[in-house]
Amino acid sequence: MVDWMADYLRDIRKYPVLPNVQPGALIDALPAHGPESGQPMDAIMADFEKLVLPGLTHWNHPRFHSYFSISASGPGILGEMLAATLNIQHMLWKASPASTELEQVTLGWLREWWGLDPRFFGIIHDTASTASMHAILAAREQAAPQARLSGEHPRLILYRSEHTHNSVDKGALTVGIGKENIRKIAADDEFRMIPQLLERAIRDDLAAGNKPFCVVATLGTTSSSSIDPLPAIGQIAEKYGLWLHVDAAYGGPAALLEEYRYILDGSSRADSIVVNPHKWLFTPVDLSILYTRRPEILRRALSLDETPAYLVTAQHDRALNFSEYALPLGRRFRSLKLWFILRYYGREGIARILREHIRMARMLAEEIGRDERFELAAPVPFSLVCFRYRGSDEENQKLFEQINATGKAFLSSTVLHGKFVLRFAIGNIATTEQDIRETWALIQGMVPAVQRSA
Amino acid sequence: MVDWMADYLRDIRKYPVLPNVQPGALIDALPAHGPESGQPMDAIMADFEKLVLPGLTHWNHPRFHSYFSISASGPGILGEMLAATLNIQHMLWKASPASTELEQVTLGWLREWWGLDPRFFGIIHDTASTASMHAILAAREQAAPQARLSGEHPRLILYRSEHTHNSVDKGALTVGIGKENIRKIAADDEFRMIPQLLERAIRDDLAAGNKPFCVVATLGTTSSSSIDPLPAIGQIAEKYGLWLHVDAAYGGPAALLEEYRYILDGSSRADSIVVNPHKWLFTPVDLSILYTRRPEILRRALSLDETPAYLVTAQHDRALNFSEYALPLGRRFRSLKLWFILRYYGREGIARILREHIRMARMLAEEIGRDERFELAAPVPFSLVCFRYRGSDEENQKLFEQINATGKAFLSSTVLHGKFVLRFAIGNIATTEQDIRETWALIQGMVPAVQRSA
Repeated sequence: MVDWMADYLRDIRKYPVLPNVQPGALIDALPAHGPESGQPMDAIMADFEKLVLPGLTHWNHPRFHSYFSISASGPGILGEMLAATLNIQHMLWKASPASTELEQVTLGWLREWWGLDPRFFGIIHDTASTASMHAILAAREQAAPQARLSGEHPRLILYRSEHTHNSVDKGALTVGIGKENIRKIAADDEFRMIPQLLERAIRDDLAAGNKPFCVVATLGTTSSSSIDPLPAIGQIAEKYGLWLHVDAAYGGPAALLEEYRYILDGSSRADSIVVNPHKWLFTPVDLSILYTRRPEILRRALSLDETPAYLVTAQHDRALNFSEYALPLGRRFRSLKLWFILRYYGREGIARILREHIRMARMLAEEIGRDERFELAAPVPFSLVCFRYRGSDEENQKLFEQINATGKAFLSSTVLHGKFVLRFAIGNIATTEQDIRETWALIQGMVPAVQRSA
Repeated sequence: MVDWMADYLRDIRKYPVLPNVQPGALIDALPAHGPESGQPMDAIMADFEKLVLPGLTHWNHPRFHSYFSISASGPGILGEMLAATLNIQHMLWKASPASTELEQVTLGWLREWWGLDPRFFGIIHDTASTASMHAILAAREQAAPQARLSGEHPRLILYRSEHTHNSVDKGALTVGIGKENIRKIAADDEFRMIPQLLERAIRDDLAAGNKPFCVVATLGTTSSSSIDPLPAIGQIAEKYGLWLHVDAAYGGPAALLEEYRYILDGSSRADSIVVNPHKWLFTPVDLSILYTRRPEILRRALSLDETPAYLVTAQHDRALNFSEYALPLGRRFRSLKLWFILRYYGREGIARILREHIRMARMLAEEIGRDERFELAAPVPFSLVCFRYRGSDEENQKLFEQINATGKAFLSSTVLHGKFVLRFAIGNIATTEQDIRETWALIQGMVPAVQRSA
């Protein structure tokens, strides 16, 4: 198995990034009923290679540029292997002291590297969706603590920009805010929330008798990686007593670079921040960090005021029970892979890789600027390049589909200023300048075919 | 690393199950700041062994009998290794077709093995807490669909027994039900919900103008592994139009044994069921399955009626986008380890192990019955044995602490009929009859010391 893993990582370029399969292909290829008798691992692995592998999208491929490009680095994989073997579940300090404390230590290191206020309490979640839901839940608790008891609350209003990730809305629906109470604040030409419009919306809601309770700012939006003006939004949140949640899931890791430290300016006013090491910190999925300056409110939001007997544990100032701050009781040992990664690369090593990704993104943006047939569709603050062919949406859609159909690269798409746009995300540790140049040449070479067929 | 893992699993009995460390020990032992430069894996592993390992609780130890005893089996560990290497995130079918479909296939196999209605739609979550929260969210959507839009709903009442896991309450608080709207129905002498009292509570709420919306039945409660009477509860749920959620997180896997098929009698009336392969199906944490007969309601509960451009994908009848049915957008490739386990052991192999665990639990219960100084504190329907020394709570507490302090076994405790009780859970694949006999002898041998000191 380990040989297979090593070969896979070495030879990954030989796989098509995106498979060419029809829906239902694997369902049809596998037995409809589970096996009565056990089978040897060799036979299972042979079926994996023959039946499953051809239908997988290779997220760890250096030419995976879709969504946000991610990496399962060597130390991260080793950490997952070890965590699976230990099979620890540290819902309480007592349930596993060292895995509880390693989570505290690693999140403390990152908090310092990112220049966050040391008062931020950190906890690991699976995804930013879950982390943000917890932030909104805490915000609800702060604004309407009676909701935890009676289920009733005034009309609570959440503000987010038109480019905020839709998982924030799902989190709001989950905790009972309601779709009508989510305000999408318009963004400027560079896709950043306009603070003046935020303040106007808050005033309108106050005038209407509603209760503004939460605002979400994003550092690195999904469509274009735009950066909301955190200091201005923070001032408004403070003025009106709103919980300020910062979605730095993608952009956050860059804050450990001196030249990017600015993105977290104003973060000491935030009530919560989410950053995803499984996005741009070489960590196998899943690992999302929620930091909050108000852990006591988060804890209260989930508090039942009584502990069932099977979870009672001795109280100690330094014995942290993470499950008191989260909906999931169970917690796997995710900090182990993070500790391996932080130590193996060190701050300098991580900075070097992030800077190289940013450099390659700027290089690609320059190449795009040099080809008159194309145009950039958004600024490139991090390592995501949004661009389009200077033609119709149909031609761009065609270009997009043809690139992905080659299996040589996988891009995703979005809509910016009403136009279909290609997204080229760089974030895999194995991606080289040659990868970028060859993929760009592939895209350029497809223009005639797209034009002809359009 | 693989050698270390193999040695660990071979030599696991040499480790104390529960470490003897003080809170803060690892925090104090590790540097307060992350490393500036990278460090070799050898040095990191050396620190792991020296600093982290002594503070871990060994959940994969054959003498871990606390909470619910679990197993990271060989094929399960291999599955996690491979999943970490592939680093797939199948939020959409398109984002990875084969991992999406392997989740459908494996959950279909288990559905059949457990005799569940084929109309149940399955989806993998991290924990039963999260799965149950989704069930309650869907129940809210069914009872008060306007809540998703306006955030307003009538006083919705959830019913659970006094022995239901508290994660159900946390799920209810999360989705905005409110603590006052959770009814704890009394249980009978054997810790099973009393259906007559459930119906009476529903009638009282209806008379008070409240809106009953959800009832939770448990197959294998955490305190004592009792089994709520599902058929009777199901009839009441149907009569009053309540969403019936079945928490079979622990007990569910046993339903693949013919002699345990009965526990799911009445399940075709359930709206949702949660079963945890990471509890009693040899699967490394985390993997919890939510089955629901009403996936369209679950989907609607999280629906925003518009898909952001970066998530738009071609529609196809057989292309399932799992993230539409869950709060978390990201999904790691958890079905791979499950597929490995189901194939490696087969239904017969799994049945053999479950029966052996149940046999050992009954043997232990008989041994306890033979020693006049002890008494069973609950029936033993599965592989959890609840017992107590026939003395004071203080003496039992002392006994409990002394056993765990030896490091030779790890038990947990609970309170049943108002008395402090020891919980001895059997569920690790490496546990042998000799383990059980030696641990029981250890417990017996401690009685004089407990008596003397009490």
